[in-house]
Amino acid sequence: MEKTQNGGAAKEEGGGDGSICGYDSLHRLLKDNLNPHIFQEVNRLLTGLNCGKPLQTIALQESATSLSLQHGFDLQAFCFHADKELLREPRVVRVGVIQNSISLPTTAHFSDQKKAIFQKLKPIIDAAGSSGVNILCLQEAWMMPFAFCTREKRWCEFAEPVDGESTVFLQSFALKYNMVIISSILERDINHGEVIWNTAVVIGNRGNIIGKHRKNHIPRVGDFNESTYYMEGNTGHPVFETAFGKIAINICYGRHHPLNWLAFGLNGAEIVFNPSATVGELSEPMWPIEARNAAIANNYFVASINRVGTETFPNPFTSGDGKPAHADFGHFYGSSHISAPDASCTPSLSRNRDGLLITDMDLNLCRQVKDKWGFRMTSRYDLYAETLAHYVKPDFEPQVTSDPLLRKKSL
Amino acid sequence: MEKTQNGGAAKEEGGGDGSICGYDSLHRLLKDNLNPHIFQEVNRLLTGLNCGKPLQTIALQESATSLSLQHGFDLQAFCFHADKELLREPRVVRVGVIQNSISLPTTAHFSDQKKAIFQKLKPIIDAAGSSGVNILCLQEAWMMPFAFCTREKRWCEFAEPVDGESTVFLQSFALKYNMVIISSILERDINHGEVIWNTAVVIGNRGNIIGKHRKNHIPRVGDFNESTYYMEGNTGHPVFETAFGKIAINICYGRHHPLNWLAFGLNGAEIVFNPSATVGELSEPMWPIEARNAAIANNYFVASINRVGTETFPNPFTSGDGKPAHADFGHFYGSSHISAPDASCTPSLSRNRDGLLITDMDLNLCRQVKDKWGFRMTSRYDLYAETLAHYVKPDFEPQVTSDPLLRKKSL
Repeated sequence: MEKTQNGGAAKEEGGGDGSICGYDSLHRLLKDNLNPHIFQEVNRLLTGLNCGKPLQTIALQESATSLSLQHGFDLQAFCFHADKELLREPRVVRVGVIQNSISLPTTAHFSDQKKAIFQKLKPIIDAAGSSGVNILCLQEAWMMPFAFCTREKRWCEFAEPVDGESTVFLQSFALKYNMVIISSILERDINHGEVIWNTAVVIGNRGNIIGKHRKNHIPRVGDFNESTYYMEGNTGHPVFETAFGKIAINICYGRHHPLNWLAFGLNGAEIVFNPSATVGELSEPMWPIEARNAAIANNYFVASINRVGTETFPNPFTSGDGKPAHADFGHFYGSSHISAPDASCTPSLSRNRDGLLITDMDLNLCRQVKDKWGFRMTSRYDLYAETLAHYVKPDFEPQVTSDPLLRKKSL
Repeated sequence: MEKTQNGGAAKEEGGGDGSICGYDSLHRLLKDNLNPHIFQEVNRLLTGLNCGKPLQTIALQESATSLSLQHGFDLQAFCFHADKELLREPRVVRVGVIQNSISLPTTAHFSDQKKAIFQKLKPIIDAAGSSGVNILCLQEAWMMPFAFCTREKRWCEFAEPVDGESTVFLQSFALKYNMVIISSILERDINHGEVIWNTAVVIGNRGNIIGKHRKNHIPRVGDFNESTYYMEGNTGHPVFETAFGKIAINICYGRHHPLNWLAFGLNGAEIVFNPSATVGELSEPMWPIEARNAAIANNYFVASINRVGTETFPNPFTSGDGKPAHADFGHFYGSSHISAPDASCTPSLSRNRDGLLITDMDLNLCRQVKDKWGFRMTSRYDLYAETLAHYVKPDFEPQVTSDPLLRKKSL
């Protein structure tokens, strides 16, 4: 309750646990405090090598950098290479991800809150578009505060049909910049009894709607009371074949489920976006682990996006932890980043500021790593199809070998 | 070929890529080079918190520390706590993992090589036993050099039946110290045509053999020519119910397969050991990712063990990369560590020296995290059983939604 609303501009409040303030990201903290040859080795251990070298940065046009300075958002750009092949040309795609805090206090009129987010995003999307980004992804439920902690149903008013105002807003940028845009919204399904979903809309580079995907796994942890608002998605694991590659969307909590990542891989995804909203005390040490593991295990790129700042709500709520009621969800720690199938990854965007991360990726790397490491070939899917079919039966009994010398006791 | 044989003692050779020499581990490198309050925050981001605090160390008996000084092996000890429960007592188990280099040159008589490894391990196992370790795990194929890179079949002579001399050697320690020991060996199956397997033998705390598990996934990457020697295991995903908890073994390359980790979890494992042999240039940035992800996703502890040093073989071999023949496998970077279901993890043992890592873990943490995060409950296994059953059919077609405005081109 003591925390203040984190508005639009670059307000650096520091670590969620208060232990150290004012630092922007782990990467910068290490770079600023280690001597260069030690930093180089630490960086190799933490972010890997791409084609045998540390990840290279990209120089962006002045229009993008001046927008970032003017509007105070973090801007970083990197390049993932692949080896040259004889039979395929490189397939370099420029991907952008945007993280942002909300713009107005949650007490403002809903319509004003949404418009203010549109306004704040405009220059960041322009920076992406003018930098030649091919595929852009926004954070989970970007068009509203992440109000599900409150359990108040009035926030459902933010929900929109797939072709609603947020989609219309983004379609103009898709068309203007010839850019695929992934928009994660709170959806209201008008044709099926006005039910609410957590949905990613995929907008094609001609401004058309290619399709949608609904969040497969819904959390019941901490203040993530999302299961109060919507159910597990009913759209399977679609891969969207766009002008710039085959992409899929694993929304937020789905990143904790290796089978969810797997299914997008089985359907041929080369880039999986993970638009998220998650807070420091709960998940921060998991954040760099799960996405990178998914990229390694499934031989695709993963783009991880988390919102930024602290959102304070009008009415205090309890968290089921015996502590007094409070009015905020904790610090959304940003730290958006991109992981590659070769186990390398970009540094993260700021923990505190809005940001745009741009990354060139040669999609040929996916199949190259597949051929090198052979995970698909050695995966024994038939064995696991059987294991899971067996497991879901009511009479499943685990495969346990007990020490015969063990005197049984109730554990 | 320029690399020298890394013998038994503590010989610090530094980074596998030569960029920086003489450091022992990432953790120590950061601790020695960052001021304490910055290190504290970096450590929080990298290794998480356990019950809201940084991981605590354990003070060991003087007998163990003097053995480590006398024999030059790294010795570290930590403690994972769980919350107090009303209906269950804490179930604290002391787990030990040992990493080591080989002892004699690979040109020595095979019998002498094996005996020399026994001799070198004796004081390290004694240090574990006298520290009250309940479950001890050695590295993959600990009783021999990791000779599969050579593709020479003569190394098969190292193979033993499950009740062979390596098992007999360890049974005496199991009995003496009331300690479960997991022994990963090259197995020869006498009863089935003398076939070779990569097998973990589980020795009970009374010195009895509880059972075995054979490596499920066999690599075909880099110099890991193991598929020349043995096939994918035929023992399923057994969980061994020992006097000190339910354990399983995911051998080496199996750590790249999320379904393998999953199956051990479905069968009820609370600790999964990952005895490995892996080298720096290939896998080092993956090493801390995959084990931690498995611990998080499956709500169990993971103990990761990698061998140490560079092993040089008598006859040079090529690596299928167009480079000249060479005689070593690269630097086995040690870095054994333990990951907990709450996303915290221990620092790693040395990258260069033999080592013993001891960790107390309250197994109640597994179910506590399961209840808190709800991954099992929200996992939709029925959906994925169907997905995999569908995928393994010859006529499987991926779920792809193509942009209708996309002019088809061959990607």
